[in-house]
Amino acid sequence: MLAEIITIGDEILIGQITDTNSGWLGQQLSQLGIRVIHRASVSDQKDHIQKALLDAAQRASLVILTGGLGPTKDDVTKHTLAEYFNSNLIENKEVLQWVTEIFTKRQLPMLEENRKQALVPANCEVLFNRSGTAPGMWFDEAGVVYVSMPGVPFEMKTIFHEQVIPKLKARFVLPVIIHRTLQTIGIGESFLAKKMEAWEDALPDYIKLAYLPAVGAVRLRLSAYGTNEKQSAGEIQEHIDALYQLVGEYIYAEGEVSLPEAIGKLLTQNKQTLATAESCTGGYLAHLITSVPGSSAYYQGSVLAYANFVKTQELGVAKKTIETHGAVSEACVKQMAEGIRKKLKTDYALATSGIAGPDGGTTEKPVGTVWIALATPSETITKIYHMGDNRERTIQRTTLTALDLLRRIILKLPVI
Amino acid sequence: MLAEIITIGDEILIGQITDTNSGWLGQQLSQLGIRVIHRASVSDQKDHIQKALLDAAQRASLVILTGGLGPTKDDVTKHTLAEYFNSNLIENKEVLQWVTEIFTKRQLPMLEENRKQALVPANCEVLFNRSGTAPGMWFDEAGVVYVSMPGVPFEMKTIFHEQVIPKLKARFVLPVIIHRTLQTIGIGESFLAKKMEAWEDALPDYIKLAYLPAVGAVRLRLSAYGTNEKQSAGEIQEHIDALYQLVGEYIYAEGEVSLPEAIGKLLTQNKQTLATAESCTGGYLAHLITSVPGSSAYYQGSVLAYANFVKTQELGVAKKTIETHGAVSEACVKQMAEGIRKKLKTDYALATSGIAGPDGGTTEKPVGTVWIALATPSETITKIYHMGDNRERTIQRTTLTALDLLRRIILKLPVI
Repeated sequence: MLAEIITIGDEILIGQITDTNSGWLGQQLSQLGIRVIHRASVSDQKDHIQKALLDAAQRASLVILTGGLGPTKDDVTKHTLAEYFNSNLIENKEVLQWVTEIFTKRQLPMLEENRKQALVPANCEVLFNRSGTAPGMWFDEAGVVYVSMPGVPFEMKTIFHEQVIPKLKARFVLPVIIHRTLQTIGIGESFLAKKMEAWEDALPDYIKLAYLPAVGAVRLRLSAYGTNEKQSAGEIQEHIDALYQLVGEYIYAEGEVSLPEAIGKLLTQNKQTLATAESCTGGYLAHLITSVPGSSAYYQGSVLAYANFVKTQELGVAKKTIETHGAVSEACVKQMAEGIRKKLKTDYALATSGIAGPDGGTTEKPVGTVWIALATPSETITKIYHMGDNRERTIQRTTLTALDLLRRIILKLPVI
Repeated sequence: MLAEIITIGDEILIGQITDTNSGWLGQQLSQLGIRVIHRASVSDQKDHIQKALLDAAQRASLVILTGGLGPTKDDVTKHTLAEYFNSNLIENKEVLQWVTEIFTKRQLPMLEENRKQALVPANCEVLFNRSGTAPGMWFDEAGVVYVSMPGVPFEMKTIFHEQVIPKLKARFVLPVIIHRTLQTIGIGESFLAKKMEAWEDALPDYIKLAYLPAVGAVRLRLSAYGTNEKQSAGEIQEHIDALYQLVGEYIYAEGEVSLPEAIGKLLTQNKQTLATAESCTGGYLAHLITSVPGSSAYYQGSVLAYANFVKTQELGVAKKTIETHGAVSEACVKQMAEGIRKKLKTDYALATSGIAGPDGGTTEKPVGTVWIALATPSETITKIYHMGDNRERTIQRTTLTALDLLRRIILKLPVI
């Protein structure tokens, strides 16, 4: 079962936007047991798109297109597809209704351009786009399935998950592949690999392991290839059980669960509350915590004390502490955590203070120096870290490290 | 002058590594006035690479390959190129000497695999790789130039800058392409397009326009194709001047500038300060503001009042206001903005309060209802918005809308 991915748009070719859709689709298709053999990015011109479609249909039985489905004039994909299939564009009632609903809800006038979004080639099945106005399309012609989706990543992902995967499973005979994803935090890829070395070497041929690193975290994906779903599931479980013995303390969740979600679950279970006091993370810690739906059940709020006077005025940090030790110090971050915990009357409080850079570093405290504190009902834990000299990554790493500290304390794991 | 980029490697197709080379090369080539009309990613198989080369040579006069030049067994690019050109592999003395030197310096034994790196097709010109052991290659055959480089980004970039650019300038008469990017905020793609319709219709053939939408914002890219740089720059400027007459109030910057950066610049110029009080945006507003290096010069801090008691206790919102009107109300958000402005003694203060969802909506205040307030030295402006029912996007849109409100007030533009 071979597939090809085509992305449409000059903005990709000239490197103005990065094509993340192709990689994501490649991962998704691999997990379904579908092999991607070719990827193409073409300009917004009809003849280029047509040539790419013809070539793809010779190589693959599944052709996935993204991009070129917006409401403006540089949208050509739909017209090209209609021509390619010797079809014509017709207005789809369901799509029109959906687009109208969206505009009504947002209390915006609907323009002719928006109405045109309901036009689709007559020979397609519409793939409902819950996240936007441009519909996805499914064509099944001469033994080849073509799927066209808008290029906006979250719209494309929603359509793929909700509409395309079920239809692919129904249309093609796909191999049995069982995937399990383990989310780890607090250990780098190479250190993790070293701890898992003997375990990994003992994996049978039909079970594959992939390390999927991101900033501050590593996902492990185990894939078992077989013919019997139950047997594969049992075997993969045995290997995962063994893996927990080795690196269990770093695994915070299974499946597509974020660290703030996992922590939200723990706090909800324990009926405990959380507050934060941020300096160098600048609101990113609060943002990750509140990105979880329902977080208001355990998260009370935060003081972002970016200026030093806010640390003393709002969090009760002693002026003398800042004068003597500076804002990036153990004493300051401890008082920040204890100050916000007392103020918002929570069980836990996390605080961060560091030098995100690019400016503000000294020989003693170089850029990337970060203090994190966690105030609990019984004690306040403080730790210093060195996060490197990239501002964005320092903010991300500090935030994840703070959340992992909280996770370890809640679960009574050793602090690292 | 047309170019095509081919990347080689299964790891790209299955999305295990992200192809950043193609985008980077697209940018570089555009700046040289070379138009990329196609990108392909192919697997490590000879026949796939050969097919891609043949196709590319029909479309473009410059074909750039990256990947598949490592010392391990999955390297096939060199053999494929030799076959494609009916050439054979010969040992290149300079490359062998360079590879030997590297291993001597690192005090590592040289393996047979490493010696093989000095093998190149007889018909190529070697492109010296100062950053690694795999050489780049330049072929000039039947009117088409082929450039092959290793896939490791920093090696590829070094070879491209030091070797390829000078050779391209010598080999081709390059046209002039001028790109200009305008960042807009506060207007949807279709509404923007409507306002620009007559202007867009009047663009000459050699000036192209692209809409590049993201959540809550649209970038406009104008590209002028010509032969005379000064003339093209002048013409594109005339069209941009005309565009400013039409939609100038929505354009917050030119080039690759984010909205928080643009606002940071305005505040710095005016020597003014900012604070925030967030509820539904959950820290994301603070995060975007503090993601700008140097933001501590104008941004003092924030109270994230997620729980209602924090709104009354920390921001001075009257209990009665919340009891009577709810936390998502004009009166509440106004008091939040005024409360934090007074507390942190800033010129401006932004506040957000809304229902991000998925829960918490009512018939009167459905999910997506958001109040934003901006307190200034002279007045407090409040506005209600309906942001739709996706939590993540409501947070993003509310944040950008709040920042745009501030931009409009600073610039004395009408509030929308």
